[in-house]
Amino acid sequence: MNYDRISTPVLVVNPGIVKSNIRRINEKCQKSGVLFRPHFKTHQSKQIGRWFRDEGISSIAVSSVAMARYFASDGWNDITVAFPYNPREHVETDALSREISLTLTIPSPESAHILASKAESRLSVMIKVDTGYNRSGTRWDNLNDLSKIIDIICTNPLLTVKGLLTHAGDTYKSESTTQARERYTLSVSRMKQVRDSLQHPGLMISVGDTPSASLFSGYPDIDELRAGNFVFYDLMQLNIGSCSFDDIAAVMVCPVVDVRHRENIVVIYGGAVHLSKDYVTIDGSPVYGQIVRLTKTGWSSYDSPLYLSSLSQEHGIIKTEAGGTAGFRTGELVGVIPVHSCLTADLAGRYLLTDGTTADHLSGTSEWLYNGQV
Amino acid sequence: MNYDRISTPVLVVNPGIVKSNIRRINEKCQKSGVLFRPHFKTHQSKQIGRWFRDEGISSIAVSSVAMARYFASDGWNDITVAFPYNPREHVETDALSREISLTLTIPSPESAHILASKAESRLSVMIKVDTGYNRSGTRWDNLNDLSKIIDIICTNPLLTVKGLLTHAGDTYKSESTTQARERYTLSVSRMKQVRDSLQHPGLMISVGDTPSASLFSGYPDIDELRAGNFVFYDLMQLNIGSCSFDDIAAVMVCPVVDVRHRENIVVIYGGAVHLSKDYVTIDGSPVYGQIVRLTKTGWSSYDSPLYLSSLSQEHGIIKTEAGGTAGFRTGELVGVIPVHSCLTADLAGRYLLTDGTTADHLSGTSEWLYNGQV
Repeated sequence: MNYDRISTPVLVVNPGIVKSNIRRINEKCQKSGVLFRPHFKTHQSKQIGRWFRDEGISSIAVSSVAMARYFASDGWNDITVAFPYNPREHVETDALSREISLTLTIPSPESAHILASKAESRLSVMIKVDTGYNRSGTRWDNLNDLSKIIDIICTNPLLTVKGLLTHAGDTYKSESTTQARERYTLSVSRMKQVRDSLQHPGLMISVGDTPSASLFSGYPDIDELRAGNFVFYDLMQLNIGSCSFDDIAAVMVCPVVDVRHRENIVVIYGGAVHLSKDYVTIDGSPVYGQIVRLTKTGWSSYDSPLYLSSLSQEHGIIKTEAGGTAGFRTGELVGVIPVHSCLTADLAGRYLLTDGTTADHLSGTSEWLYNGQV
Repeated sequence: MNYDRISTPVLVVNPGIVKSNIRRINEKCQKSGVLFRPHFKTHQSKQIGRWFRDEGISSIAVSSVAMARYFASDGWNDITVAFPYNPREHVETDALSREISLTLTIPSPESAHILASKAESRLSVMIKVDTGYNRSGTRWDNLNDLSKIIDIICTNPLLTVKGLLTHAGDTYKSESTTQARERYTLSVSRMKQVRDSLQHPGLMISVGDTPSASLFSGYPDIDELRAGNFVFYDLMQLNIGSCSFDDIAAVMVCPVVDVRHRENIVVIYGGAVHLSKDYVTIDGSPVYGQIVRLTKTGWSSYDSPLYLSSLSQEHGIIKTEAGGTAGFRTGELVGVIPVHSCLTADLAGRYLLTDGTTADHLSGTSEWLYNGQV
């Protein structure tokens, strides 16, 4: 990899690592007889999507209608919008459902009512179950409302209830791999409980979070896996223990613009608008990225890990031990492993691959629909 | 304002409030005989820039070379890049300096050396002084290095040292308006100390932070003011006390996608990719935005303030008091006052104005220079 030509913060992705991350989860799905429906919200890239297709994958999840449209235009025709149905985008949703096999996510009887009254084309529905994460959906123990959702959806013959969908997002906040495993296991057991109680024929169970997808060697008891972050991994996943340093596929390459030897500070061009303000807590302090050395073949860590300790709009601040700034020079480049690669990729807007080519990312502004005009 | 046509998260800006925010600071500058050089990194918009021009403003600050290029293309020809000089963008910097009056920021003798050896066109230089914020620059009490920077810059006759530049960024972390005022006052007194000690003819003092620009009725002792955030303000500024609710000019309008009456949760389509993960702490908890009611003329606050208590990629979670979800319906819209409008505007990528027209924002990806190719 020739980094020399980089002059401003650029997100560099190693395709070899991405492909191996895809293969690892795909093989575990195949072994478990589980449909792998990778979540494309992490990379949002047609190019990277094609690497999934090369592995035989044909079903995907996305988190917006714009994203569904983006991937449909690249030949994907089995797409789940794994985000609560947005009635205000019904026109766009309806148009897309006439072109591909589209599945929506319904979190409540109210949402089911709106969809059932509006739908004029064939749509599949996943019911969003909250198994304890406490974000969106209907709680696993509220069988009354879950069953109501099915009844309402079934009033419109164009709609089909496919299954139950959850996101055990609390695994991302786990303090150990054991805790992440326990949270996932509890979530799946609650999903089974719901499925068994509802007695609607053929209800599938769909789950998806990168920590558990990575930590388990197989996925018994589920029908579909929707993990997404594993494609790149990041510092959050490294911190949880879901990946090793060598599994991380994306690094933000940033110019050094100020080296302050007396104050043990290195300032980089790389701030909140490049990396996002997401952070992990390491040794009691917020950390906004891990600094890596750039090498001929990619990047490598420092012997003693070095972190971004604060970010403003364009500045990133590396605090070092005394003497730790000695190896840095203004005008040179460093790499930053992002805390949360989904958000960093979204900010980057495209990728430079380690083979010197580039890859696309859905443009943020193309999401903006106003009066039907993008 | 007709919000009805909004279907996905859109950043709405009230031009009347923006113009009045501009006028207020501009008048204080004029009264104090201070050059107002507004920082355009907050809005990054040619359209909004023209409202400044309408007030007679002709000098601006930006935080990247791409931003300087963007505004130069709209007729601005006195631009300071108020971010440490990035030697890797020297070619682009040099090209721009041949078209407009460009000022760079030099934080260290090392940076000065690189610029002095590379510069082949006329450039002005501001010396970045760290008056205690501990981000970039040379400390106010390191007169040796500050004086070295001047000497190095003066070795290249194309370069002119214009003055001293600082950013008292700790005012943003103030716990009271008194503390913000004290931090600013200390910063300015240190700048004066540096100027008086260096004895270089004509050194100007440039400062810029929205809390102090807003809190003081005039700006004695400085020559130039570079505040930027005041154009929109936001929840962070409201929380510090630098603005009133009515001064806030930007609101992210978001669809409601799930209302959970039993759990006292409202889920909106509006997450970290729309608002950023910046937060303020209110009553001991992190807050990612304040919820407002949309009205015919703009927006208004709830009697008892309602906040976004967590964000994931596309989801925003409003936690209410018991019964507080009663007024919300799936499919309707709410407004969110962003915590940090600079980051939210950067994510939004453009604006919808309350008069129904739109305004541009520099596209993030246009910043990416690789081998001279954007």
